[in-house]
This record gives sequence, structure tokens and C-alpha cells, in this order.
Amino acid sequence: MILARIIGTIWATRKEASLEGAKLQIVRPVELDYQEKSGFLVAVDAVGAGVGEIVLVCQGSSARQTELTTQKPVDATIMAIVDKLDVTEKT
Amino acid sequence: MILARIIGTIWATRKEASLEGAKLQIVRPVELDYQEKSGFLVAVDAVGAGVGEIVLVCQGSSARQTELTTQKPVDATIMAIVDKLDVTEKT
Amino acid sequence: MILARIIGTIWATRKEASLEGAKLQIVRPVELDYQEKSGFLVAVDAVGAGVGEIVLVCQGSSARQTELTTQKPVDATIMAIVDKLDVTEKT
Amino acid sequence: MILARIIGTIWATRKEASLEGAKLQIVRPVELDYQEKSGFLVAVDAVGAGVGEIVLVCQGSSARQTELTTQKPVDATIMAIVDKLDVTEKT
Amino acid sequence: MILARIIGTIWATRKEASLEGAKLQIVRPVELDYQEKSGFLVAVDAVGAGVGEIVLVCQGSSARQTELTTQKPVDATIMAIVDKLDVTEKT
Repeated sequence: MILARIIGTIWATRKEASLEGAKLQIVRPVELDYQEKSGFLVAVDAVGAGVGEIVLVCQGSSARQTELTTQKPVDATIMAIVDKLDVTEKT
Repeated sequence: MILARIIGTIWATRKEASLEGAKLQIVRPVELDYQEKSGFLVAVDAVGAGVGEIVLVCQGSSARQTELTTQKPVDATIMAIVDKLDVTEKT
Repeated sequence: MILARIIGTIWATRKEASLEGAKLQIVRPVELDYQEKSGFLVAVDAVGAGVGEIVLVCQGSSARQTELTTQKPVDATIMAIVDKLDVTEKT
Repeated sequence: MILARIIGTIWATRKEASLEGAKLQIVRPVELDYQEKSGFLVAVDAVGAGVGEIVLVCQGSSARQTELTTQKPVDATIMAIVDKLDVTEKT
Repeated sequence: MILARIIGTIWATRKEASLEGAKLQIVRPVELDYQEKSGFLVAVDAVGAGVGEIVLVCQGSSARQTELTTQKPVDATIMAIVDKLDVTEKT
């Protein structure tokens, strides 16, 4: 999974029928200190996260392993909202 | 999913039989302001999008989760046409 | 899918039994003007393409969605031979 | 699989229900001499590894092929703890 | 598939139970002239290849399409030993 911040939302009225009601969020990968990296992707939210929150994004076929995304054309899903990180860098 | 613009079409008469009738579109990833990035990929259109439109492209096995692409050798599918983005960059 | 040119062939007598008879082609990604990019990958040919031809290559689990490649350890398949491209770059 | 060191842990109380109890570890890819590369990803631990250990991480749908991760939205799993490497570089 | 040289072996006694007996080889991608590229990955050997041999590596869910790797947490499998390449570069 990748660590990312939700930075926005996509509006798309014309879409594959099975995606009706799915929330399409724009997420930007972040560093361990939550500093934003470059790039972004679009993920379906399966956990009710809001813009600005730090989340985990699952990609590939595993993105379909939630009740909301099963059997849908979705390759990235927000499946956890991060409370905090414990990082032990080698020193 | 990635955000992309449809920039063209591929013509291929000799192809895997199951792809008969599938529209093969050339898509180029774009930034959040729709500025084109480098690179491109080829995706099957599942939503009737036209050249020039901003779309979402789903990749991998999830690209087969539409009526049009199920059980076909397709690894990228256009599954939504973007109306607009709401982006809240951290400031 | 990616756009590529077939530039060669791999010979491998010792291989997974299910791959007996599969043609292993070396493909190099190309630009929209067919200029070769760097890098290459090895793909099974499902459409009878020849060296030098411009083709589409499907990757991942979707590469197994042909009669020739089903249930085989194949992660890239040539599934179309390109006749021509229509590209409308933004100007 | 990639070779990586576990450098930390993610805490996430709000997550997809099926992930309850899964340990979300932060792993950083390493070189063959265990020197850390840049970047990191988040993986579920299926083998009881601890922070600081060198492990193998399996990605994609294969990450779901353990008792702990089956049918869950997990795209990276720690599935082995490395004892040692034998490397024969060409000289 | 990618073209690679086997450069070593991983020893891991603590691993997912289904991996018992699987040979974990370190492979480094090579150019068409077999010159080593940077980077490496770990793959299960399904064809009895030895260190130093040039092989093909299949990745993703397709890596599980061998008798040895089916239903196991394996995302890269050595599925062919290369005898030789015929390459016709455009001139």
C-alpha cells in the first residue's frame, strides 16, 4: 500500500454503470513526514475519509477486495485512514 | 486510476478475435490542470468518450471489470469521463 | 496496452512445460511516430506478428486472456498488429 | 519479490473491516548489502517479523495468497524473513 | 517477461508455510547483450536454473501459473532458461 493525502475529488457523471455512487478521490503520495511527493492518482474511498486526511491506498486487483469495489473497474482503493506512524530509522 | 486525455485512435484489423469491435484509444496522462504529461498508453473505451476528452483510465485486471472488456486481453480501460476536479492543495 | 515493435526472438528449450510452442518475441516500446524508446520486454505472440511489425502488447493477468496463453506463466502478450494511428495532438 | 527492511508501523483504527488485526508495517527496499534505498511501501506482515529485520515482500494479487491476507484489500505482504544472501556477482 | 541473470540465492527459514522448498533466487535484469542493468528482484525458480544462467522472469499473478507456485505468495517466477536471442535492430 502507499501512504497518501486526499487532495481533491473527481466529478464524473458519465461513467461505467457499476461505479454509480463511488466517491472518486484524488490522492497524492506523501513521505513518512507527510510531505507531499509529486504525482497523484485517483482512488475510490471505501472508508469514508475526507479531503486532507492521510490514508493508505491499495492498488491492483486487491483494490477490488472491499464490499464497495468488488467486481468494479477500480484499480486503487482507500482502505485505511492513518492515525500515526512509528518509524525507527537506522542511525 | 489515472487522469488522461484521449489524443487518438489505433487501427488494427489483425487482432485477438475477442477484441472485435473494441475501440482502442490512445490516452496521454495529464496533470491536475489538464496539462499533458509525457508518455501514452492504449486503452479500450467502455464509456463512449471522444478524442480530446479528459477521462479516467483503470489498469490491470480491473480493466476487465466491464461488460465490454470481460475476459479479454485488455489491461487498460476508459471507465469515466471527467466533468471537473475539486482540488484543495495544502497551502 | 503499450505500442511496441517486435525486434527479435528468444530461444529457450528448457522452459515451463505449458509454454511449449509459444513464440517468445522481444518487443521494444515505440513513440507515436514509431521511433524506438529504450528498454524492451519479452511477450508471447497471440496474433502471428512478424519481426519489425508494430504491435500492441497487453500485460499482467490480462496477458492470459487468449486461447494460447490461458493458465500459463505469461505476463505479456502481443494481441494486435497496428495498421495505423490517428493522433490529434492539442495545438 | 523485493528485499526490504521493516522500518516502522502504521496505526489506523478506521480501516476496511477485513483488515482488523492485520499488522501494517512500513518497509524500505534495500540493496544486496542491506543498504537502504529511497522510497517505502506499507505491507501486511504474515510471518511475525519485527522492526529492523530484512524481509521479502510480495506484491499484487500474490500478496493475498496467505491465510492472513486472503480476500482482503492488501497489495503487499511480508512473506519471508531473510537469514542470508549468497551473491555471485560477475567479475 | 523480463530477461535476467541469476546472481544469487536467498536463505529464509522463517517464511510463509506454502513456500517450503521453493528456491528463492536473486535475479538482475540484463540488456540484450546480457550486460547487467541496475536493480534486482527475487524470483522462485520453476525450471531448475543455476546461478549465472540467463533466464526469463514472469511477474504478477502470472507468476503463480506453474505447478510449483500455484496459490502461493509469489510475484516473480523463473519460467524459462534462455538459449539464445535473435535480435534484428532497425538500422
